[in-house]
Amino acid sequence: MTVIVVNAILIGLETDPDVMAFGGELIVFLDKVAIAIFTAELALKLFAYRARFFRDGWNVFDLLIVAVAYVPAGGGFSVLRALRILRALRIISVVPRMRQVVQGLFTAIPAMGTVVLLLTLIFYIAAVMATNLFGERFPLWFGTVGESLYTLFQIMTLESWSMGIVRPMMDVYPYAWLFFVPFVLISSFIVLNLFIAIIVNAMHEAQDEASHAERDAILSEVRLLRTEMQALRDDVARQSLSRAP
Amino acid sequence: MTVIVVNAILIGLETDPDVMAFGGELIVFLDKVAIAIFTAELALKLFAYRARFFRDGWNVFDLLIVAVAYVPAGGGFSVLRALRILRALRIISVVPRMRQVVQGLFTAIPAMGTVVLLLTLIFYIAAVMATNLFGERFPLWFGTVGESLYTLFQIMTLESWSMGIVRPMMDVYPYAWLFFVPFVLISSFIVLNLFIAIIVNAMHEAQDEASHAERDAILSEVRLLRTEMQALRDDVARQSLSRAP
Amino acid sequence: MTVIVVNAILIGLETDPDVMAFGGELIVFLDKVAIAIFTAELALKLFAYRARFFRDGWNVFDLLIVAVAYVPAGGGFSVLRALRILRALRIISVVPRMRQVVQGLFTAIPAMGTVVLLLTLIFYIAAVMATNLFGERFPLWFGTVGESLYTLFQIMTLESWSMGIVRPMMDVYPYAWLFFVPFVLISSFIVLNLFIAIIVNAMHEAQDEASHAERDAILSEVRLLRTEMQALRDDVARQSLSRAP
Amino acid sequence: MTVIVVNAILIGLETDPDVMAFGGELIVFLDKVAIAIFTAELALKLFAYRARFFRDGWNVFDLLIVAVAYVPAGGGFSVLRALRILRALRIISVVPRMRQVVQGLFTAIPAMGTVVLLLTLIFYIAAVMATNLFGERFPLWFGTVGESLYTLFQIMTLESWSMGIVRPMMDVYPYAWLFFVPFVLISSFIVLNLFIAIIVNAMHEAQDEASHAERDAILSEVRLLRTEMQALRDDVARQSLSRAP
Repeated sequence: MTVIVVNAILIGLETDPDVMAFGGELIVFLDKVAIAIFTAELALKLFAYRARFFRDGWNVFDLLIVAVAYVPAGGGFSVLRALRILRALRIISVVPRMRQVVQGLFTAIPAMGTVVLLLTLIFYIAAVMATNLFGERFPLWFGTVGESLYTLFQIMTLESWSMGIVRPMMDVYPYAWLFFVPFVLISSFIVLNLFIAIIVNAMHEAQDEASHAERDAILSEVRLLRTEMQALRDDVARQSLSRAP
Repeated sequence: MTVIVVNAILIGLETDPDVMAFGGELIVFLDKVAIAIFTAELALKLFAYRARFFRDGWNVFDLLIVAVAYVPAGGGFSVLRALRILRALRIISVVPRMRQVVQGLFTAIPAMGTVVLLLTLIFYIAAVMATNLFGERFPLWFGTVGESLYTLFQIMTLESWSMGIVRPMMDVYPYAWLFFVPFVLISSFIVLNLFIAIIVNAMHEAQDEASHAERDAILSEVRLLRTEMQALRDDVARQSLSRAP
Repeated sequence: MTVIVVNAILIGLETDPDVMAFGGELIVFLDKVAIAIFTAELALKLFAYRARFFRDGWNVFDLLIVAVAYVPAGGGFSVLRALRILRALRIISVVPRMRQVVQGLFTAIPAMGTVVLLLTLIFYIAAVMATNLFGERFPLWFGTVGESLYTLFQIMTLESWSMGIVRPMMDVYPYAWLFFVPFVLISSFIVLNLFIAIIVNAMHEAQDEASHAERDAILSEVRLLRTEMQALRDDVARQSLSRAP
Repeated sequence: MTVIVVNAILIGLETDPDVMAFGGELIVFLDKVAIAIFTAELALKLFAYRARFFRDGWNVFDLLIVAVAYVPAGGGFSVLRALRILRALRIISVVPRMRQVVQGLFTAIPAMGTVVLLLTLIFYIAAVMATNLFGERFPLWFGTVGESLYTLFQIMTLESWSMGIVRPMMDVYPYAWLFFVPFVLISSFIVLNLFIAIIVNAMHEAQDEASHAERDAILSEVRLLRTEMQALRDDVARQSLSRAP
């Protein structure tokens, strides 16, 4: 396993342009060795688990990452060459703690579900409105719905929203702030609620472990007490019966 | 219900300028069909519920959104044309989970009440002060109270507050930072407390569900134990009486 | 009380330059009336409570705000004229809920104490270092410790820190990022911990109310049970004694 | 101890260029006195504790800070001169509450461990990809992996990410947003989870103190009840035995 981690770091180093000029050939060779090792490992796993191999999401993840290495990387495919560094992501699937953290991040997603959908809806509506209202005069920022979505995303991150975007627009549309200030408030309020949903979710899980166990201890103790109490009542009743005749 | 969702998405697509050039007439026709369906649905609801129709806020919300479609959209009313995309908001009133999330967002508002009022007060005072102090020399940013409010909102979001606004002002008023640094600190401290009020509120509700139930289980168990105890005391007392004569 | 609130709003309106041009004389007169009312109110309070008047922080706060009105506002004292709007802050001391919120904000301060001190120390050290390192070449940003403190505060708010400050500096000092990236990380980490201290503090108080009450209910119920149990033991013991002879 | 604090503040003052011009010689002398005191104190501690001296991290911290004073500060070593202000950090090791807060900050680090590692991995991968994709045309921002890391850090802090970096890049690479928008989302999502991990950690500790104690009180009360119950059963059993013959 550690060999894979070392290899993954080597692959990362390979894409560094400075090192390539010096020991390019060696690195390309080591890269091919690494790919061969990964392929062999995956082939063995595939052979061992067969159909079950695809049930584990991490295996599919590994397969896709290694597969990128075999796509021809020459010519105009500079994007694919860049994607090869994604192989470093294999560290996540190899180190168990990393895997846990990433799975933890994914468990936060369902709690975010509807709020993300609502945010998407607000963004879509705001983008269409902005395209209609400002698209003609500011085609660079709001020419199409796609450009509006990007500009609104920038505004949501508060980057240059006022000096860069809204102030120049107010020279043409003096009431542009009536659109953008509410948008900033609403989008940041929804994002805040998204954060809170995740925090409350994380808190919930963390708390349940500790205090749930303590409350269970109390409950079981009280129940034990009740069993003993019933035994006592039985004792008293039996005693009373034995005296009756 | 799903038909309405599909329609709402279609309406959104209609406002996309690229698609309009190609199939403009078909889309305008489909839009009219969608408006007819919405109108018929609302008319039926209005007929069925009558006065009770207006008691549910979501019905009024739907009515307003559909009503916008009937306002004449020609001439200078480009703003009203843009408002037509708001019909996509009907998705919220139609999908129950969306409705829940939005209602959840509204329940957070009362907890924010006084803090928002305080923030408004601080903003108002700061805007009047800024207009008095800097309005003469920087009319673009602080010429009127309205412009000051906008500029202070920008400063609160920390967008270009220093390089864009305060540094140029310090060339004229070297002590401008004495106004703006405390403003940044106070406004962000109040906003932080606003966030905390919402988080604590959300936490409170989330926790009460789980641990309240567990504590209730313990309490009812203990009470059951007490009833049993009293029954035992009665048993012992009766026994003692029956032996007395 | 409501008269004071209305007056306070009127005072705010007075500083609006647009309204002043139209009904300036009326507003100045109304302002004088308002000051007279406030002064009379405070004089009455001072007369009624005497020395105790100064024990309540809110009274001192009111006194200071009203006193500003009597400072001569002509000539170069435009700053003092601007301070008159601070009278609107009296709304806080008059509305009880506002008072509560502001007191709530102040209770959060002790929890922040040491962290704020630590942050001040880090800022001071960083400012002195930055003045030594970069002051000669960038006197506008780091010429004196005061200017360094302001620039570092701007960097902490992340406003134009890279494009505006650090990138131009890296043309002269290529290793400037070794100072600023750690500063951004450390300062935001400390600020984050400041936030967490406040959140945990707020949480603590909020939780104790609800769940503390429930736990107390359980505890008192269990104690009641024990008293009953001891009564039962006494019963049994007495019974056994009465049968002994 | 307070002498050290005063000295530390004096050292800070020394680096202020304005004061140096006036009373430079006095300050240099006082600085030498302070260094002498610190050195004597550390020498005494070293002599008293010997090997144990190095076990306490705070002692090593003090030693390193004082040692910097003895490094020759002339010539090109302006960086070392600037480091002398770090002696002010001794306040932390001297004031116990400060020490506690800093140790509190360090205890938050293990909880962050894996998430920080994950963030580093994401940064490294993104930097290599950005260098490959955009390095040729934008050497200033993405020329080397180091420059890419710095630019990505700037983008993560959202400083000028769009107007300053991504928009100019989209003139050359229209799909650059496909890289940067996901990067902004993923990095801020991971940073958010980092914050949550720290908050949950802090919460956990804070809560356990109060409610754990209360739950323990309930549990011990219930257990006391059970002991009493067993005593009662013994009483009843003994009574029954005594009556048997």
